[in-house]
Amino acid sequence: MMYKDSVKLKVKSQKIVNITGMVEDVLRKSKIKDGLCSLFSVGATCSVIINEDDPMLLEDLRKAMEKIAPEKGIYQHAENAHSHIRSAIMGSSQTIPIKDGKMQLGTWQEIMVANFDTKDREREVIVTIISD
Amino acid sequence: MMYKDSVKLKVKSQKIVNITGMVEDVLRKSKIKDGLCSLFSVGATCSVIINEDDPMLLEDLRKAMEKIAPEKGIYQHAENAHSHIRSAIMGSSQTIPIKDGKMQLGTWQEIMVANFDTKDREREVIVTIISD
Amino acid sequence: MMYKDSVKLKVKSQKIVNITGMVEDVLRKSKIKDGLCSLFSVGATCSVIINEDDPMLLEDLRKAMEKIAPEKGIYQHAENAHSHIRSAIMGSSQTIPIKDGKMQLGTWQEIMVANFDTKDREREVIVTIISD
Repeated sequence: MMYKDSVKLKVKSQKIVNITGMVEDVLRKSKIKDGLCSLFSVGATCSVIINEDDPMLLEDLRKAMEKIAPEKGIYQHAENAHSHIRSAIMGSSQTIPIKDGKMQLGTWQEIMVANFDTKDREREVIVTIISD
Repeated sequence: MMYKDSVKLKVKSQKIVNITGMVEDVLRKSKIKDGLCSLFSVGATCSVIINEDDPMLLEDLRKAMEKIAPEKGIYQHAENAHSHIRSAIMGSSQTIPIKDGKMQLGTWQEIMVANFDTKDREREVIVTIISD
Repeated sequence: MMYKDSVKLKVKSQKIVNITGMVEDVLRKSKIKDGLCSLFSVGATCSVIINEDDPMLLEDLRKAMEKIAPEKGIYQHAENAHSHIRSAIMGSSQTIPIKDGKMQLGTWQEIMVANFDTKDREREVIVTIISD
């Protein structure tokens, strides 16, 4: 069995937002107890990230990305090349195992959506739950 | 139900090629309307990337990778360490949701295979479609 | 059908360890011949990496990560920000296709778990096998 829904939210430019609770809501509605949860971030300037939700760490992560693809860098692609590069590096999909109705995340693992774009954007993460 | 096929194509060294149409062909043949599409790039010097297919952006991405793992860098692993490092960072697998017979990609999201190797190579991406 | 197990092992700080054989053991126990193998690394300072298991290459990869997130860098997040950043970049999940009871990895593709943390840690990779 497969249950599908999506999580939509406004995310400010360059921000990373915790959506663990929203994904847990989808899981609860699915009534699926064991299986897999597949996440896909729609858009070429965003990513789904699984890591610790600490504002200081997220700022450290932004600075690391800034080294690889600086916001004010020189690019051939107009306007937001750095946003696309960050998205490509961080990836668009993640799959998390589910047991007893809960995602098997580690203590410090939270599901987050990153909007790497130069503008505030409504972001969508498609959640697909597959049952055992 | 699961349908499996693979996409094979010659990719020049350091090039990233759009395979969205080829994956759509597999999806069409599968006759699956709703579910998930799992992609896996075979080989330790290539990746499946989901992003915008703009030659200028792909050149920007190549330059960003060049900063992390330069082609002429000094490595312990002979010959193509930079190819392996780029592949490890960009990843080998992606999972895309399917609805009404279409992949739910964003407007600018295309599926691409990157051949980071120092030689032209035949590259293979295994496509597995899981139905609802 | 879905079969689930997990692979646990002690991994030294900053080390990357090959777990292909352990994942193959889970696959064998599952008796599943065709399908998908989903891997998830539990913890915000580790990753599942698919690449060549060559100690020299893994040292090259460590040095590339050191450029992006240096161990002795200045961070806002206390103690192990570099470990989290490396984990976020390398990712927490991978999905590998299975055919005739074997994972369809390329010749040089091995499944490895990276412990990016500053301490030796017991690491867990959850293995979920989905049948055709």
